[in-house]
Amino acid sequence: MKNNKNLILPLGFKANGLSCGLKRSGKPDLALIYSSPAALASAKFTTSSIIAAPLIVCKKHLKSAKKFQAVLINSGNANCFTGKAGVKDAQASADYLARELKIAKHSVLVNSTGIIGKRLDLAKIKQAIPQLVAGLSSAGIHRAETAIMTTDTFAKEVSRSLKVDGKLVRICAIAKGAGMIAPNMATMLCFIMTDAAVTQPALNKALSAAVDKSFNCISVDGCMSTNDTVLVLANAAAGNKVISAGESLENFSKALEAVCLDLAKMVVADAEGATKFIQIDVCQAKNTQEAKSIALGIANSMLFKTAVFGENPNFGRVAAAVGASGFNIKEEQLKIKLGSLKDKQVKLTVSLSRGKSKCTVYTSDLTPEYIKINAEYN
Amino acid sequence: MKNNKNLILPLGFKANGLSCGLKRSGKPDLALIYSSPAALASAKFTTSSIIAAPLIVCKKHLKSAKKFQAVLINSGNANCFTGKAGVKDAQASADYLARELKIAKHSVLVNSTGIIGKRLDLAKIKQAIPQLVAGLSSAGIHRAETAIMTTDTFAKEVSRSLKVDGKLVRICAIAKGAGMIAPNMATMLCFIMTDAAVTQPALNKALSAAVDKSFNCISVDGCMSTNDTVLVLANAAAGNKVISAGESLENFSKALEAVCLDLAKMVVADAEGATKFIQIDVCQAKNTQEAKSIALGIANSMLFKTAVFGENPNFGRVAAAVGASGFNIKEEQLKIKLGSLKDKQVKLTVSLSRGKSKCTVYTSDLTPEYIKINAEYN
Repeated sequence: MKNNKNLILPLGFKANGLSCGLKRSGKPDLALIYSSPAALASAKFTTSSIIAAPLIVCKKHLKSAKKFQAVLINSGNANCFTGKAGVKDAQASADYLARELKIAKHSVLVNSTGIIGKRLDLAKIKQAIPQLVAGLSSAGIHRAETAIMTTDTFAKEVSRSLKVDGKLVRICAIAKGAGMIAPNMATMLCFIMTDAAVTQPALNKALSAAVDKSFNCISVDGCMSTNDTVLVLANAAAGNKVISAGESLENFSKALEAVCLDLAKMVVADAEGATKFIQIDVCQAKNTQEAKSIALGIANSMLFKTAVFGENPNFGRVAAAVGASGFNIKEEQLKIKLGSLKDKQVKLTVSLSRGKSKCTVYTSDLTPEYIKINAEYN
Repeated sequence: MKNNKNLILPLGFKANGLSCGLKRSGKPDLALIYSSPAALASAKFTTSSIIAAPLIVCKKHLKSAKKFQAVLINSGNANCFTGKAGVKDAQASADYLARELKIAKHSVLVNSTGIIGKRLDLAKIKQAIPQLVAGLSSAGIHRAETAIMTTDTFAKEVSRSLKVDGKLVRICAIAKGAGMIAPNMATMLCFIMTDAAVTQPALNKALSAAVDKSFNCISVDGCMSTNDTVLVLANAAAGNKVISAGESLENFSKALEAVCLDLAKMVVADAEGATKFIQIDVCQAKNTQEAKSIALGIANSMLFKTAVFGENPNFGRVAAAVGASGFNIKEEQLKIKLGSLKDKQVKLTVSLSRGKSKCTVYTSDLTPEYIKINAEYN
């Protein structure tokens, strides 16, 4: 999971990351993704009713503009629960970056992750922006992915390419996890870049489908952050025939889903304190929603997660979670198959004898180390 | 929280508890509560769709009979996820006890708590029943409350009396917690005895209200057991004017609620590995359901519970839990007041500026010890 020198950055994208002093540790905390030409964007945000200030700015810009050129991300401070002042700060940082890059104000998107409830140190960000812009390069993507990390123990990047009507199209994405469990530093963020030419409706559709089968199928602790964001920029630099429907959209969607799923699995693998990577397959459900709800119910059961940590093959804990799921699943419908718990990878299969739908969810175990990390953080 | 020699057992009730060998530790694991005269009963069971075998038998008896004389409870085995054989075992133990006590078969109720998925050792229970019956006494209630314990570190009992039209009426209850988090040994059980004369509808109403404001307002880990039961027996031995409505029902309900709330708090205080007792008051909500859902959302947030363990006054974790609750609560509506985290008792007040309703929920912190207990149990 080390930096991949062969990461394929889509055409027209550059990035950079550096330390501007938001993190007390002095580690990198400010990242920039830049696209020329300007790109279409599509995004999925947290469904929490309390959202961070940068998301308010992002949503405004996504409404008022059609194309975007820059994403500014800081770690070390979530700029959440900071009131109107927080929104002003987020807007000011976006405006400042737009001036520096000489691009339209609305073409800048912003994001933050870190401590909730503290004002952003805007001066530090402003001061660092000229250097951040000056250092933009293809290789800078590795610096960017490091600068968005909080409690992550490794940087998360994926790239993939596909052919669309004979033209090579590239998708590259970076993400940070994994500490929804550590909301001080919380948030799952993912930024996807592609040089595909794709219509806005097709991009929206592909992202929705990809997120639904990847980031919406993982759970570390069942806690939703105020900053969760998955954002894709598509700048058409590949020069392919515009993807809008049919086979080309299908292929693009599949590639996007694969990128998201790879990153989602990395987020689970890097969950705080985790010692196990758990795959939960719920099958023979009435419909996909039933399968997903039950799989997430098991994934969020503290007692199941603790059993896996203890390598305790306790299928009663699975049965209890299924019974409590709110679907009227009876004992005689339920088949539980729990793989060996000795390995780092654990597989649980739950069959419901109710239909043909299925869903796979990924989660981690719950460990004393997880509690230690979160209890001691301040 | 030691055994109270002055525990007031309602008239007509006797109890006993002993070790029949279900627990490998050799600790007491079989309890009996007996009432003469026969008593009305009302019960609340787990809403899980997968319920333990004794609950199936209980529900059948509660439907087919009007009065009850005995409750047989074993710990060390939940008799759950044991199929039709498990139901047969539960029924057989009830029938055997009925013969021994020379009472109607349907007047026996049964309950179990302990390991899920293993057959009950019926022979051990049958063998112990004569001795269990022979030892019935008022003082035996202390032995009974010990015999229903699993991971509980102290026995839980409460008694209270009130005047109904000049007559003294007694309520006494015993309970076991606290390891919903340890589903191997899971289950919250509570058995309430009263000598009040009360109509069946009034008893049902009083129990529903009491459970709603007590056991339904606590959460250790958000996991629901397959065996959860709160059962009240009312044998009318006090000779009071029958309680059916008005002031006498109000007073009886209040006393029942106070008994349940005391026990519920004991269950939280005895939660596995807990170092803190947390009271969460949600006020200024639109309605009670909103207040309760949000309070339980916070109580079940691993990150909030971990913060309290770490004495980390992180209100951002509370804000995140409120935002994720599904109600459309905005940042500007939310006021969070978190008391000192240095004490064993912690109080959190969340004001929503939306209305006049409120709810109080009790929970515990999440600690490495909790994980240790559950990971290592087998």
